[in-house]
Amino acid sequence: MIAVDAMGGDYAPDQIVLGALYAAQCGVPVILFGFHEKIYSLLTLYDPFWNRFPISIFNTEQVVGMDEYPVDAIRKKKDSSLLKAMQSVKSGYCSAFVSAGNTGAVMVAAKFVLGCTAGVDRPAIIGFLKTLKKNVLFLDIGANADCKAKHLVQFARMAVLYAKQTLHLADPAVSLLSNGHEPGKGSLLIKETFGLLQKERGIHFIGNIEPVGILRSETDIVVTDGFSGNIVLKTIEAMVNVFDVKNYKISDNGAFLLGVNGVVVIAHGNSNARVIKDSILLAFKKTCNKESLYGNGKKSFGRVSAKSI
Amino acid sequence: MIAVDAMGGDYAPDQIVLGALYAAQCGVPVILFGFHEKIYSLLTLYDPFWNRFPISIFNTEQVVGMDEYPVDAIRKKKDSSLLKAMQSVKSGYCSAFVSAGNTGAVMVAAKFVLGCTAGVDRPAIIGFLKTLKKNVLFLDIGANADCKAKHLVQFARMAVLYAKQTLHLADPAVSLLSNGHEPGKGSLLIKETFGLLQKERGIHFIGNIEPVGILRSETDIVVTDGFSGNIVLKTIEAMVNVFDVKNYKISDNGAFLLGVNGVVVIAHGNSNARVIKDSILLAFKKTCNKESLYGNGKKSFGRVSAKSI
Repeated sequence: MIAVDAMGGDYAPDQIVLGALYAAQCGVPVILFGFHEKIYSLLTLYDPFWNRFPISIFNTEQVVGMDEYPVDAIRKKKDSSLLKAMQSVKSGYCSAFVSAGNTGAVMVAAKFVLGCTAGVDRPAIIGFLKTLKKNVLFLDIGANADCKAKHLVQFARMAVLYAKQTLHLADPAVSLLSNGHEPGKGSLLIKETFGLLQKERGIHFIGNIEPVGILRSETDIVVTDGFSGNIVLKTIEAMVNVFDVKNYKISDNGAFLLGVNGVVVIAHGNSNARVIKDSILLAFKKTCNKESLYGNGKKSFGRVSAKSI
Repeated sequence: MIAVDAMGGDYAPDQIVLGALYAAQCGVPVILFGFHEKIYSLLTLYDPFWNRFPISIFNTEQVVGMDEYPVDAIRKKKDSSLLKAMQSVKSGYCSAFVSAGNTGAVMVAAKFVLGCTAGVDRPAIIGFLKTLKKNVLFLDIGANADCKAKHLVQFARMAVLYAKQTLHLADPAVSLLSNGHEPGKGSLLIKETFGLLQKERGIHFIGNIEPVGILRSETDIVVTDGFSGNIVLKTIEAMVNVFDVKNYKISDNGAFLLGVNGVVVIAHGNSNARVIKDSILLAFKKTCNKESLYGNGKKSFGRVSAKSI
């Protein structure tokens, strides 16, 4: 069961509800957290027979705004769709959380509700960056604007584990984003991290990397702070959206928050229904076996009762 | 007279010498600083009648490597092409300095030889970034990997002055690069700088800007630290070089180092002869009136004696 924060995102709840409906129509069981009446009427508008599909509504009374200060929002709004959805993962009722809402607030909620995994001080968002020959794992792409060297080392460890477990890479190459590929190039943060990563066991550190090296697929994993990572990603998106880039398609189907005890998928604030659907499918694939997702269509899903949370 | 560091750059001295020759053939007086014998033979190779043009050689015995630690290199190599060329600007014999060499070393040399202008702690490199509707001024693009908020404010002041004097903009709009356009988004550095720029008189500060806003030409000036600025620029270049971007041409004709008492143009390390020529022309335009550059060809230039430096 996937917990979807119906109230988070620039086009919430309309596009979130529609995206969740698409996912449910693919056979993925979904609970929408948010204003019951609004969500109910949207579902009915999009598909009068929506209750054929494994989708249900859990009513919450509060919404975390896109620009709200994360810690305050999570502390004060105890009945927000974001927090309740996260709690449903903690309780084990849902297997994964999906939101296109306030990224900072999602991170704070995940940290406080689910907790960080052992050895992790800061969760990080990991994205798949399309490059010339393959997708490169890229983190942090937006959770932590200010990082210390030890955090970047933790990001590297998390990413290596993820690459081994999920992508089945035996010994993924790890690089550090910098403004020069030579050792010694970069900010103080990069220089310190470089030294730590060189000494780190179990990490195949191949040195600094510049954007051109990333796009030429010279690495498997790129480690950076959330500010620089987000800026690089947004620069690539901006090039694609403002100018005409051939042979480049942005993969925008949500990204995992690594380093917390649970599956959390964060979608871009401006996600439309298609992106939300893909994000829910991504979360589902991570938590379930593929067969149930791409079954023969004969499987039936029991109706979901939100009350049972 | 333009002082050119013939030994700086990935393709030095060959491409630097050729670029300087092109500039001299356009009528721009140039002195090449570096190994006399090598430069002489290159000039003769490229054009046996090179001494028809206003180009000459100043012999220096040392070279600052591309990856050398800047402060050490400038302190120890007193007879480097870079330092001697910079000193020729300080003495007034040359009007501007051009190099494709070690950026950090150029900055250190400029700071110590020419000195910072009043109110400036750190010189910054300002580039013209091609965007949808116009060129946007972008700084710092590589001189200072680590900055404090007061430095970014100084960058803003320098850029506004530059935009008024050189581009004749009456009230240029200044933005701060961030990972969200809303106030409060960004790293601690960005948040602090945002507060300072809001209070700053004489600066038309329009807030945070994301890469998409820059490429859509929503500002005149973008202020950032040298690490982020360099990364954004290199990401754009990488997109253009690795993928096929229609309607986008990188402008790579060198960038000014602002905040020092003299005209300093820094070209990309991988500059070829064409870029070096353009960089020299850029430096010349900044220091001379256009007529002498685009004259009717009847003007004659006296031969240059390097000994007179």
